[in-house]
Amino acid sequence: MVDSNTANETTYDRVETLLANMTLREKVGQVNQKLYGWEVYSKTDTGYELTENFKEHVQRWDGIGVLYGLFRSDPWSAVNFENGITEEDSAEVANMIQQYVKEHTRLGIPVLLSEECSHGHQGLDSMITPVNLGIGATWNPELHEKLMAAVAEEVRAKGAHLALVSTLDILRDPRWGRSEECFSEDPYLASRLTESVLKGMQGEQGDVIQEGKMVPVLKHFAAQGNGTGGKNAAPATIGERELREIHLPPMVAAIRSGALACMAAYNEIDGISCHANGYLLNHILREEFGFKGAVMADGCALDNLVALTQSRERAAALALENGVDISLWDDVYITLESAVETGLVSEEKLNEAVRRVLTLKFKMGLFDQPLLESLQQQQDKEQARNINLESARQSIVLLKNEGILPLSKDFKKIAIIGPNADSVYNQLGDYTPFQREEDVITVLKGIKSLAKESEVAYEKGCGIRSGDPEGLEKAVHLAGDSDVAIVVLGGSSARNFDAQFDLNGAVVNTTGEEEMDCGENVDVANLELGGLQLELLQKVMETGTPTVVVLIQGRPHAIPWIAEHAPAILSAWYPGQMGGQAIAEILFGDVNPSGRLPVSIPRSSMQLPVYYNYKDGGYKKDFFDMSGNALYPFGFGLSYTEFNYENLLVTKPTISADQLLAGETFSITVDVTNKGNHDGYEVIQLYLKGKGSSITRRVKELKGFKKVWLAAGETIEVTFELGAEELQVFSSRNTYELEPGLFEIEVGNPVTCLNAILKIG
Amino acid sequence: MVDSNTANETTYDRVETLLANMTLREKVGQVNQKLYGWEVYSKTDTGYELTENFKEHVQRWDGIGVLYGLFRSDPWSAVNFENGITEEDSAEVANMIQQYVKEHTRLGIPVLLSEECSHGHQGLDSMITPVNLGIGATWNPELHEKLMAAVAEEVRAKGAHLALVSTLDILRDPRWGRSEECFSEDPYLASRLTESVLKGMQGEQGDVIQEGKMVPVLKHFAAQGNGTGGKNAAPATIGERELREIHLPPMVAAIRSGALACMAAYNEIDGISCHANGYLLNHILREEFGFKGAVMADGCALDNLVALTQSRERAAALALENGVDISLWDDVYITLESAVETGLVSEEKLNEAVRRVLTLKFKMGLFDQPLLESLQQQQDKEQARNINLESARQSIVLLKNEGILPLSKDFKKIAIIGPNADSVYNQLGDYTPFQREEDVITVLKGIKSLAKESEVAYEKGCGIRSGDPEGLEKAVHLAGDSDVAIVVLGGSSARNFDAQFDLNGAVVNTTGEEEMDCGENVDVANLELGGLQLELLQKVMETGTPTVVVLIQGRPHAIPWIAEHAPAILSAWYPGQMGGQAIAEILFGDVNPSGRLPVSIPRSSMQLPVYYNYKDGGYKKDFFDMSGNALYPFGFGLSYTEFNYENLLVTKPTISADQLLAGETFSITVDVTNKGNHDGYEVIQLYLKGKGSSITRRVKELKGFKKVWLAAGETIEVTFELGAEELQVFSSRNTYELEPGLFEIEVGNPVTCLNAILKIG
Repeated sequence: MVDSNTANETTYDRVETLLANMTLREKVGQVNQKLYGWEVYSKTDTGYELTENFKEHVQRWDGIGVLYGLFRSDPWSAVNFENGITEEDSAEVANMIQQYVKEHTRLGIPVLLSEECSHGHQGLDSMITPVNLGIGATWNPELHEKLMAAVAEEVRAKGAHLALVSTLDILRDPRWGRSEECFSEDPYLASRLTESVLKGMQGEQGDVIQEGKMVPVLKHFAAQGNGTGGKNAAPATIGERELREIHLPPMVAAIRSGALACMAAYNEIDGISCHANGYLLNHILREEFGFKGAVMADGCALDNLVALTQSRERAAALALENGVDISLWDDVYITLESAVETGLVSEEKLNEAVRRVLTLKFKMGLFDQPLLESLQQQQDKEQARNINLESARQSIVLLKNEGILPLSKDFKKIAIIGPNADSVYNQLGDYTPFQREEDVITVLKGIKSLAKESEVAYEKGCGIRSGDPEGLEKAVHLAGDSDVAIVVLGGSSARNFDAQFDLNGAVVNTTGEEEMDCGENVDVANLELGGLQLELLQKVMETGTPTVVVLIQGRPHAIPWIAEHAPAILSAWYPGQMGGQAIAEILFGDVNPSGRLPVSIPRSSMQLPVYYNYKDGGYKKDFFDMSGNALYPFGFGLSYTEFNYENLLVTKPTISADQLLAGETFSITVDVTNKGNHDGYEVIQLYLKGKGSSITRRVKELKGFKKVWLAAGETIEVTFELGAEELQVFSSRNTYELEPGLFEIEVGNPVTCLNAILKIG
Repeated sequence: MVDSNTANETTYDRVETLLANMTLREKVGQVNQKLYGWEVYSKTDTGYELTENFKEHVQRWDGIGVLYGLFRSDPWSAVNFENGITEEDSAEVANMIQQYVKEHTRLGIPVLLSEECSHGHQGLDSMITPVNLGIGATWNPELHEKLMAAVAEEVRAKGAHLALVSTLDILRDPRWGRSEECFSEDPYLASRLTESVLKGMQGEQGDVIQEGKMVPVLKHFAAQGNGTGGKNAAPATIGERELREIHLPPMVAAIRSGALACMAAYNEIDGISCHANGYLLNHILREEFGFKGAVMADGCALDNLVALTQSRERAAALALENGVDISLWDDVYITLESAVETGLVSEEKLNEAVRRVLTLKFKMGLFDQPLLESLQQQQDKEQARNINLESARQSIVLLKNEGILPLSKDFKKIAIIGPNADSVYNQLGDYTPFQREEDVITVLKGIKSLAKESEVAYEKGCGIRSGDPEGLEKAVHLAGDSDVAIVVLGGSSARNFDAQFDLNGAVVNTTGEEEMDCGENVDVANLELGGLQLELLQKVMETGTPTVVVLIQGRPHAIPWIAEHAPAILSAWYPGQMGGQAIAEILFGDVNPSGRLPVSIPRSSMQLPVYYNYKDGGYKKDFFDMSGNALYPFGFGLSYTEFNYENLLVTKPTISADQLLAGETFSITVDVTNKGNHDGYEVIQLYLKGKGSSITRRVKELKGFKKVWLAAGETIEVTFELGAEELQVFSSRNTYELEPGLFEIEVGNPVTCLNAILKIG
């Protein structure tokens, strides 16, 4: 489908020349990503030194393909400000490694450094942005491109080349602990934001990655968001059409934007592991979609294959044969030498993987300039910080407002209550490095800085999941004694930086409390708020003090009581280090909320799944005992102003399939008016419903959106184009086709919209 | 795979000769099943007469292919003892119809009469058996064969030929209201019981169906038990391997047992409706599996296709082309005449469907003997009743017993409490005809008949879903005043025979109460017991009176509190008309419980899915906040005695794939001892786990079971054979293969078992 990333002749020649000169061992070294970064160096009184472990590894393989997480900081590796690499030292250590490998290996092939960049870099002193679910709520790909450019600039300046970024996972079951890492439940929205990641981080497509840019390794390919029961890495039992309709579109968009690397998903799809899936990785991804880049394994995922093959060598052969190029931490790809020698897999197959690794190194310019200049131009930190703040602002969704918001700054006393009101790590998400507290603006800090004339008092009230009622009374007393209460509830993906951890860093019962309710491998069955949070809110509201609920969360929690009773609700997801300021600005009306739900908010786990784009057909949508609908639908979000739609027009409502294939599009215009008194953003959404087809269609599918700024009273005409890509289906003949028939379109937002009909005829 | 049902030359010739003589209109008439049976006749003072509606239909099509539900009785058609056809009149009315059609059509082709036989015939005076989920709990295919033979004998004697029976649906989500119609969550158990349906109802394979036998139309093909969210007829998003591993095995078993008819499922599979799915119906079912029978549409399912085709003619062509032979109620197949005339589908395609209908008629011997002899030999009703009673006994699962069971018959006063203790319809399931109350033994009646020396008092206490607390106090008072309390809770699929109904017969808010919690289109999100049932039990237990819980239910309810606190629990499913006697016999120890769970009992809807045969692999099985395991596992069930396993032996632990394909089997023996003081049945279960494969394997898969009677102290050697069919997988190469490798087997029950290793080498 998509043809891109063709390496030009020069790079091609250089790769082939180098490859022809490599031994089997050297080749195997290039496809392995075996060491953890923090095993590579130790900090001394005067600087850093490389470990014997590292040197032995270099000697063993006569090189290193990819080195993972050199700068990574987290609680269970215990890399922190004492023993880790701070930003100012990063380039120095990266250079030490390149220099050592250059000098101590036969061919001197430079090393690719890969780093986790889930929501900013998981390294010390990095900028922590909203998690992907918050980015999804911005519905603003242009803004996200800027944000990712800022992240890339920061991380590349440290010396890294590959940024591991979740963009491909589609949130189909919010029980999943990695919900926060998904942009959306919707493939179209996720695809547009995936393009932003490519454009922002990797920049213009060309033979060489530009200065300040790096290669995102897109996670995860494919269908990890469809794990059975919402369990992490659990099997996806879906068929190929569901796979193509829901899970593959972000990768198609990524390839069109020049994607050079992706990571295979832990899960299987219909019985076949994504790490042993030639149909997925070789046929669909490479032959059909035209991907020319490298596929990286997920951490220790290749070890799981040994359950199938009963030997590491056969597992290595299986993965290589089926399209995995680069390992991650596993004990499998180190056996590729003997796998090739014993004929389990051909050396030519290995060469393909090595070519892809070497191509990445050439594209990063590493052979010509492996070392960072000591004084690269400094990033404009202030600008990056502003982009981060703007992303946080636009990620916040106003779910309910019975007129209480925006708040006046004239309140005498403001009560700030709740476990997420002043907790640094709780607003940052999983994959977060150690923080300097002063770098993170909590809600309490944000409000204090804005409501300078008010007395701002804080009580935590309760924990996220703890059953300890000790703090309730003080919090309720504070609320009763204040003019307004801002109750900040939600979830937490904060791993305990002081406790004992299991392999995934989840807290193991050291304090008797498990305060997380989200994050990798923190899948929950019950989507209600944990612990005593609801009780806290209810007691606060019983005081009669006007109350605003702010949810800081990594997944949509089920909040039926709050939706019914609280006068105002904001969902802020994990908004990153600037989150508290963004929330405060919205609470006080300095900023008009513009986030829209990137995911349906369910009433309960019991009604799952609840994504908006379910299949139409002859069945009952509701349960006998519960509505089948979301509590708040996908695309929903209030503003301090109101928008009106008029004059929906389709310039030419019938176009033939041939014309569409030749590039013609349906052109759809609509007038949007800000009819309220506040300036603000509206997100104009275009949904499509196919009315006749060889396959069953969904009740609606997002196929376009625009986020536009409208001054109070202003009217803007907005235009959408729908072409072959938006209108094609993977038909009952198992090919992408433009099937003749009618399409209903809906333009507006979930509260108010206009309809029209198109026809492929 | 399976070759069977080859019509012999004679039938073949007769069909071809007849077909060659038929007009297009007559052919279309033969594939239509359009009238509802109760529209066909009216009852007069002296007997029955055929309606004008019926006569016009016969004239319009010059015949009738299949006539649905002539004897059907149910609340929304309001066919009851006043206006319906009682058993004694059945043959007369059936003969009237055959006679009329013979005399008023050009070719005099006899009519096939189809009847719902979900758990016994949905006609007046029929024998009502346990629902399929209870039959699954018997783990006794031999017994079920006898039961189905008795049902066939009864229904055939009324004049019907086709019995619509659910056997193919696999229960993967207990929120589904049709859970009760599934044998099991497991394909192997469901397959063995599907074979019983064929053997019992249809009898020996041959050119002509024997006397007293009829053709089961197996419902539903395929994957209806995998509807998204547990919603009835909702899309199954599964892939082909999941389809083949879980949902297709009962049909494979059915074909081997001579299946002649099945019904297509309402749902789509991965975007393609089962009614427009040539890959499923023509390729897999017919070409690959060798099915030679007819495929019937589900009720109005063809109408749903119009959403895809935007015309009825195109919908008819689509369904016919893709393998649907017979319609049901829809307005689509009546357009086949014009569909053929306008070239949307070929007449040859229609001929194929007509051949299949005519073949069924020849096989039923209808051309030679369309009328029932006026005095067919009488069925032995007493014997049938005993088989039904024995089925009910063996369907009851003892989930917990802290020594309180079996009860002594010497209690002075026994309290019988709960909404299911004395409700006729609540113990019979959906698809139940009007009842004569005296034909149904409730728990209250059953206990009264057994505990003759005791005072047996009854209080309902509360409803199934009602919030009305009025009856609680009296029930609790009764419990406090008694020596033992038997609390009969659970669900209900009883449609209200006096109220207003929606199209599916579910009660529409006429009394302010909705007392159903199960049945077709009664899908629930919350699996807890409805209404005040748990509160009733808790208050009864607070009296200190020893309490036994009996669950009468159509799905596994989530009962974590009861599992923890009640001293004894029986699950009786919907046990049919003899249910109360069977339950009483078990409570008092006249019968030793021998049912085993055919489905996992979940802790909560929130943890779904919870089937036992989940995929193994590198992921966490538990949620962060809830065990991922069932509350009670598949295969579990206590007895009043205890069983012990010894001497697990595999005669020849390594066999090659070629030897297996040639028919060799692994022979596995084990000694089972009844080491307690009661005689009783044990169900010896054999599970398999593949240790190396091209596909991911499940943690375990049932591949054999035997239900054996053991006197107290007795030891029996039991032998299992595992051959190619049990050991093959649908490999990553998309073919069934015997892949070399190890297999772990587990023999016993979920509480105690022995392990061994096999090898395909």
